[in-house]
Amino acid sequence: MTFMEQRLSIITLAVKNLEVAASFYKDKFGWNPQPIDSDDIYFFHLNGLLLGLYPLDKTIEDATVTISGGEYHPFTLAYNTRSETEVDEIFTEMKAKGVKIIKEPEKVFWGGYSGYIADPDGNLWEIAYNPFMKMDDRGNVIS
Amino acid sequence: MTFMEQRLSIITLAVKNLEVAASFYKDKFGWNPQPIDSDDIYFFHLNGLLLGLYPLDKTIEDATVTISGGEYHPFTLAYNTRSETEVDEIFTEMKAKGVKIIKEPEKVFWGGYSGYIADPDGNLWEIAYNPFMKMDDRGNVIS
Repeated sequence: MTFMEQRLSIITLAVKNLEVAASFYKDKFGWNPQPIDSDDIYFFHLNGLLLGLYPLDKTIEDATVTISGGEYHPFTLAYNTRSETEVDEIFTEMKAKGVKIIKEPEKVFWGGYSGYIADPDGNLWEIAYNPFMKMDDRGNVIS
Repeated sequence: MTFMEQRLSIITLAVKNLEVAASFYKDKFGWNPQPIDSDDIYFFHLNGLLLGLYPLDKTIEDATVTISGGEYHPFTLAYNTRSETEVDEIFTEMKAKGVKIIKEPEKVFWGGYSGYIADPDGNLWEIAYNPFMKMDDRGNVIS
């Protein structure tokens, strides 16, 4: 059974100053953010995945871990599923395999269902269902 | 002029122990690395981009910056071009825009041509031409 397809949905950089970071990608790279109904996050639609910019303090709050100090790092990788059930299935599998669980999946404020695990180097992976994210059959993020 | 397309080629995690990290993605995620003629790096082919695993000490050597301590972070994002000239053009543009140059482009040991810049949060971007990387018309990494 392939329970996790070999793909990435989002890489989110946890930034000190959101507007400074956003200006860098807009002005220096010349990239266009997605129109979005939030002042707290930026998403740039790349090739089948999103580059997100999110304030460091809010990332810490969301992932429930201290990020400064070296144990965890100021970015998160996201694997988005097609249902809430799939999130639970992945957590069940990860626990059975002894993976470090950072935050159990739960309903989150932006309308999704999400939890966090960590790899051996402290890289944070969010496993999430986002009802607003559109993906194609292969799991590429459309918008 | 669009000098940088809105896409990502590689995210490489700078890991403390390469085999431990590789086992995590192989055994826990169930992902298959690309067959590759090197013991120093792993690449997993995702949706149009690669997830790389590379030892932290070698990442520091390649990027020429100290990564521990918080100024820079233990991962690199790579934007791959279709020629060496394109790498130089991007560096010229970045310098004109006042972007922090970490390492000027140069021929590198793996056969490519590459340099590094940093965003305002110290996230390292490698701008590289890799003659061995296959991309489709839209810049998705094929292999």
